[in-house]
Amino acid sequence: MTTVQAPPRAPEVLARCRELVRPALEEAVGGMHPWVAEMAGYSFGWCEVGGAPAAAPGGKGVRQALAVLGAEAAGADGRAGVPAAVAVELVHAFSLLHDDIMDGDGTRRRRPAVWRAYGTGPAVLAGDALFALAVETLATAAGGPGTLRLLSAALADLVRGQADDLLFTARPHAGPQRVTPEEYRAMAEGKTGALLGCALALGAALGGAPEATVGVLARAGRHLGIAFQLVDDVLGIWGDPAVTGKPADGDLRMRKMTYPVLVALGSPVAGRLPALLGRPERATEAAALVEAAGGRSAALAEARTHTAAARALLAEAPLAAGAAGQLHTLLDHLADREL
Amino acid sequence: MTTVQAPPRAPEVLARCRELVRPALEEAVGGMHPWVAEMAGYSFGWCEVGGAPAAAPGGKGVRQALAVLGAEAAGADGRAGVPAAVAVELVHAFSLLHDDIMDGDGTRRRRPAVWRAYGTGPAVLAGDALFALAVETLATAAGGPGTLRLLSAALADLVRGQADDLLFTARPHAGPQRVTPEEYRAMAEGKTGALLGCALALGAALGGAPEATVGVLARAGRHLGIAFQLVDDVLGIWGDPAVTGKPADGDLRMRKMTYPVLVALGSPVAGRLPALLGRPERATEAAALVEAAGGRSAALAEARTHTAAARALLAEAPLAAGAAGQLHTLLDHLADREL
Repeated sequence: MTTVQAPPRAPEVLARCRELVRPALEEAVGGMHPWVAEMAGYSFGWCEVGGAPAAAPGGKGVRQALAVLGAEAAGADGRAGVPAAVAVELVHAFSLLHDDIMDGDGTRRRRPAVWRAYGTGPAVLAGDALFALAVETLATAAGGPGTLRLLSAALADLVRGQADDLLFTARPHAGPQRVTPEEYRAMAEGKTGALLGCALALGAALGGAPEATVGVLARAGRHLGIAFQLVDDVLGIWGDPAVTGKPADGDLRMRKMTYPVLVALGSPVAGRLPALLGRPERATEAAALVEAAGGRSAALAEARTHTAAARALLAEAPLAAGAAGQLHTLLDHLADREL
Repeated sequence: MTTVQAPPRAPEVLARCRELVRPALEEAVGGMHPWVAEMAGYSFGWCEVGGAPAAAPGGKGVRQALAVLGAEAAGADGRAGVPAAVAVELVHAFSLLHDDIMDGDGTRRRRPAVWRAYGTGPAVLAGDALFALAVETLATAAGGPGTLRLLSAALADLVRGQADDLLFTARPHAGPQRVTPEEYRAMAEGKTGALLGCALALGAALGGAPEATVGVLARAGRHLGIAFQLVDDVLGIWGDPAVTGKPADGDLRMRKMTYPVLVALGSPVAGRLPALLGRPERATEAAALVEAAGGRSAALAEARTHTAAARALLAEAPLAAGAAGQLHTLLDHLADREL
């Protein structure tokens, strides 16, 4: 009698990859300066301020999963992707630490952000240390040095995307100077897509994939990242605070230039929207107006376009079937999360 | 008739290397996000806030000179060391930007520090961008990827040294918890020595030096860095403000844990020194007490020890004679600057 095993679901895929990567990630962080290691551990949800063990929610580990699946998709054992997984998780942690400083965001995963808990200077330092450790992880991994070009290109794009995002908040809401959807896509590709693409590509490269496959996976990851950011924008306005861990309408209160808002601002229905943005007491009204102006549906349609593009690229690359299936599962999960 | 050319003096060596490196450094910075490129240009003294061209004093360019001389010492053309020179100057600029935030230091080379001129968030971002660009510069240079291990190790040590330096200010002035000279040396080696050693080693590696020579040069640069930091400490207390660009006794006012101070605190003559530190109005008195307790002469003696160690290592390595001579000239210059 043959039992057909159901393919793993997304949370199982994520959990399996987190488990595979965790020892190497802990070892890397454990080699840091003790003070900096504590801040890193706090940001991963492993400890409290002062170092007492904790089991606070860390991230879902999307980036590390992409690196492991990238290696598996190349036909290698998932363990081949672990140095890539560690590197991209360290880069992600670095960018969260520094972005929270730049955005003045005092809360991260329902806890005080590192800069709020430890001070701005120490948080800058901890971010730098995570960044340096990411580079070191790849530079010292077997086969790693040749892949550092992928990481450094992603780092450059990440910083470029963050610069654009910061500058967007200062742009006018109307007239020729306002942010265009094209500018938004470039920002989201840099800020979110570059590292997701890098995770997949790095994992595949360490798994021995040919250069063309690595390139296709990098592009697939970038599309996934744009879709991810678009869904994030929708959740930032209409998400359930109990699920997102952020206040309802938070992005509207903070006057963040998200995709639904910039689409709405370009619609004739927008009317008084510019006057409502950044005013916490008018956030509910603003959200209704953005929805009426088609901002929500446009963002979701755009996210679907990029998810489809990612899917098409994955279908085109010569990947190991099992891993490819799990990549598709993960992709669906991320595109539809909590919507 | 033969004319014997006098060997170049240190300022000429530095100027020659700056000239050789400048086009590549400008090209690298020119490829950054325009906003970030302006902050980088401001930090190099190339422009004012807003982007208007300036010729403000940049650094002396010690690190880029070491990279160029490292390549020449390996028997290569100095141009072989240029990617290394660009990378270490970018790392140096990154560390100055972030250190000024961490130390709350509002002035750098007689101008407002980047965080004071552009804001803390943008300065964090600009530092990150410089860091990423340094890695990218080496990752994309011919022969560069294999040397990234040298850079990443230096980055890790740099951050570790900065962490120690920040924590030193919180340590007590007396009793078993006070900072020891050994701890100081480790801090200075990380904070200053690692990048100087990396500059020499990277240049030599790109110049084709054998691994053993690269290792010896890295160690020589680390000793030079410790000596450099010790001289900096002496100048921070007894330096001429017109030359250093910093207030007299500045380090004593800020309660910085420098080598002269920690030696003095270990002496029976120290007496009331702990009570004077961090009190601007008592800084002159504190400086006299540190000197009477032997802090100044001990720091200079320690600097000489490390300069001698660097010199001995350079003498031991098989280096091209001309470049080795210029390295010695530079070393003497740095060890004796403005004392």
